[in-house]
Amino acid sequence: MQRDQLERSRQAADTALKHVSSKRLQTAIAELARYGGRDDGGVARETLTDMDLQARRYLIDRARAMGCAVEVDDCANLFFRRAGKTDRPPVMTGSHVDTQPVGGKLDGAYGVVAGLEVLQALQDAGVQTERPVEVVVWTNEEGSRFGPGCMGSSAYVDPARLAGYRAARDGAQLSFGEAVDRALQAIPDVPRRPMQQPLAGFVELHIEQGPVLETAGVPLGVVTGIQSVRWYRVKVTGVAAHAGTTPMNIRTDAMAACIQMAHRLYAEAARQQASGLRLTLGRWVVSPNSINTIPGEVEFTIDMRCVDENVLAEFDAVMRGIVQDGAGRTRVVLEAIFERKPTHFPTAMTALVEEACARACQLATKPAPLALTSGAFHDAMYLADHCPTAMIFVPSKKGISHNALEETDHGDLFMGAQALAYAVTRMAGA
Amino acid sequence: MQRDQLERSRQAADTALKHVSSKRLQTAIAELARYGGRDDGGVARETLTDMDLQARRYLIDRARAMGCAVEVDDCANLFFRRAGKTDRPPVMTGSHVDTQPVGGKLDGAYGVVAGLEVLQALQDAGVQTERPVEVVVWTNEEGSRFGPGCMGSSAYVDPARLAGYRAARDGAQLSFGEAVDRALQAIPDVPRRPMQQPLAGFVELHIEQGPVLETAGVPLGVVTGIQSVRWYRVKVTGVAAHAGTTPMNIRTDAMAACIQMAHRLYAEAARQQASGLRLTLGRWVVSPNSINTIPGEVEFTIDMRCVDENVLAEFDAVMRGIVQDGAGRTRVVLEAIFERKPTHFPTAMTALVEEACARACQLATKPAPLALTSGAFHDAMYLADHCPTAMIFVPSKKGISHNALEETDHGDLFMGAQALAYAVTRMAGA
Repeated sequence: MQRDQLERSRQAADTALKHVSSKRLQTAIAELARYGGRDDGGVARETLTDMDLQARRYLIDRARAMGCAVEVDDCANLFFRRAGKTDRPPVMTGSHVDTQPVGGKLDGAYGVVAGLEVLQALQDAGVQTERPVEVVVWTNEEGSRFGPGCMGSSAYVDPARLAGYRAARDGAQLSFGEAVDRALQAIPDVPRRPMQQPLAGFVELHIEQGPVLETAGVPLGVVTGIQSVRWYRVKVTGVAAHAGTTPMNIRTDAMAACIQMAHRLYAEAARQQASGLRLTLGRWVVSPNSINTIPGEVEFTIDMRCVDENVLAEFDAVMRGIVQDGAGRTRVVLEAIFERKPTHFPTAMTALVEEACARACQLATKPAPLALTSGAFHDAMYLADHCPTAMIFVPSKKGISHNALEETDHGDLFMGAQALAYAVTRMAGA
Repeated sequence: MQRDQLERSRQAADTALKHVSSKRLQTAIAELARYGGRDDGGVARETLTDMDLQARRYLIDRARAMGCAVEVDDCANLFFRRAGKTDRPPVMTGSHVDTQPVGGKLDGAYGVVAGLEVLQALQDAGVQTERPVEVVVWTNEEGSRFGPGCMGSSAYVDPARLAGYRAARDGAQLSFGEAVDRALQAIPDVPRRPMQQPLAGFVELHIEQGPVLETAGVPLGVVTGIQSVRWYRVKVTGVAAHAGTTPMNIRTDAMAACIQMAHRLYAEAARQQASGLRLTLGRWVVSPNSINTIPGEVEFTIDMRCVDENVLAEFDAVMRGIVQDGAGRTRVVLEAIFERKPTHFPTAMTALVEEACARACQLATKPAPLALTSGAFHDAMYLADHCPTAMIFVPSKKGISHNALEETDHGDLFMGAQALAYAVTRMAGA
């Protein structure tokens, strides 16, 4: 009987996979990209802006046209539900449709559009799943207008977070709470539902936003987890003085101290390259930043990531030593500003996604899927705290994302949606 | 006869020196500092602003009250002339009264006020010099409102420069030419005179703007020359990418390349410290300057100085090698943006200034004057192209300048004015 059920759900998954339409998927990607679309191919659709609200309305109308029930929660997360044979907790897929100030048409949007394509494929295939299948649109994944990112998904799994998020303000001093209320008022026809509802599982399909799959020549990636990350701010205070009149031996040059630290940090990171450690010194503020004045104060940031928390912890200790040693006559303040432990998706879920991806690759006679970790955060990182979660990646050309040039081969996008259809149907049962 | 003349001018110089009044000098410094004076002790009096024009009017009135003839030239340089027994080319002293956006009350102003104090001392002592003595107020030494600096003095020695300077614009798009015309219209009572007039010599008294004299515990410095300087801009272009998703081995991190270059540049500069080489990497512009994005483009500036032109040329060659070697996968553009050869004041002039300083130190039972080079530019740098030139430095507390905290011991300021009175009188003859 159990074997029968498994066989039945595999067959249903395969049927759903075969009903995914590349043409329909591309049309939907292009349609959604009109909301905030730019001449350079980019999309400017920051969270809860008018453009985002128009995109949401388009998606609601489309989901309803497909026969879905549409609901929204207190964080303006949208849910498109295809009923199952039972009312047991649904299988969820989806992602986000907000972008960076200027982003591409795929980051987030692809996962939502592909989710709707899966629902359409199930419909066309006449597959009735045991569990309902829901496509979600998480609010404010990007975090560029209101910080932090992933507000919608993290509030969904822990609604206590919402009160703090509502106080966050954008550059125009509008609060996230006001923006959410405005978004909810714009869709009075959509019923409200509670957050934190139980889920059978969550699968997110996303572009890689990095070059690993493209470099390997593989169309689909099985994401095993998300790297841990630690962010620091280093503030070095020396003495600003005239570049011409101050002898070298009595300077307290804040930049010279930072260069010393940064050089040792890069060297140490290079030693740890085999462990997958990633080090970025991305933000620098030099004061007074004048060609003929010795820098009196320099701030720089450290972004360090690794999927192996032990490697990261070890590097952290070394980093602290380097920063202290490099101070010289300057005064150094090291401030931890963010930390996130690694996410490891459960083996049962990665195995299921692997099976789905392998099936799509087999049909297209493409290389087998590659297991990889995500260096970027995704809504799935928070969902993993709530239910069995997995992610599928498709390649990004040249690894470019958060950019108008963001692009993925149409065949890869098609295969990603096929794998998603297979995985979701298998989880929902038939 | 010659020996008699020398003895006479020494006695006159000593008499003038002894008639310098510390109290009167301090009063004049405080009076001038009212124009643009701030609560924090700083002075905001950028060139040719209303504050500067008011300060100029105050000085004109004061010079006339002392019996001086006042003249102005096409660059709005002001000249206060005490007649000599003859009409031979005058001995000139003075400096500038414009400040940085926020500067101190001594940088420039001290040299002008001390010059007027010397004229008063000659008057009080009843000394009639052979040559006229002129106190000059050079226009726009600072270069902060209109670039470059030292416009007045450099145009005086080469009037062909003026046309180009007149086209320079400030932040409000007002041209230097318009500002000069406005300054000239404000003083219709002051007769115009040609530029580039012959001078018997020029002596500039200035605060050191560095810590050498204070560190040595010496009240007066004989400036032997002004360091050569070369300015470069290094632009490094890599590829901006996500800090989390981009493996270390395929990054083209513009900041990492710059850190590598900067580290080697500092190390090389440290090797050359005994030669007096000074290296400052003062201005950094990082793009996109985001904590979780690999820097795609970094610009930084190199300010390198040395009084020994050969050491500087050698370092220049090494620098070029370091910058090219450090490029890695990035694209590097090195742009030379400014160069000034060293100035060496003539031995006869430094010997005369040394004699003047030694006399002031002897009277105050203070350590003998120290010979040093100037790391900052001064109007005297350009005058040295025109006539025998010298400079006297007094200490700056903690080496601080271009700052409201700029300060010099009153006794040191007094001794500087005494030495100036001696030097000017010796040169003017009696």
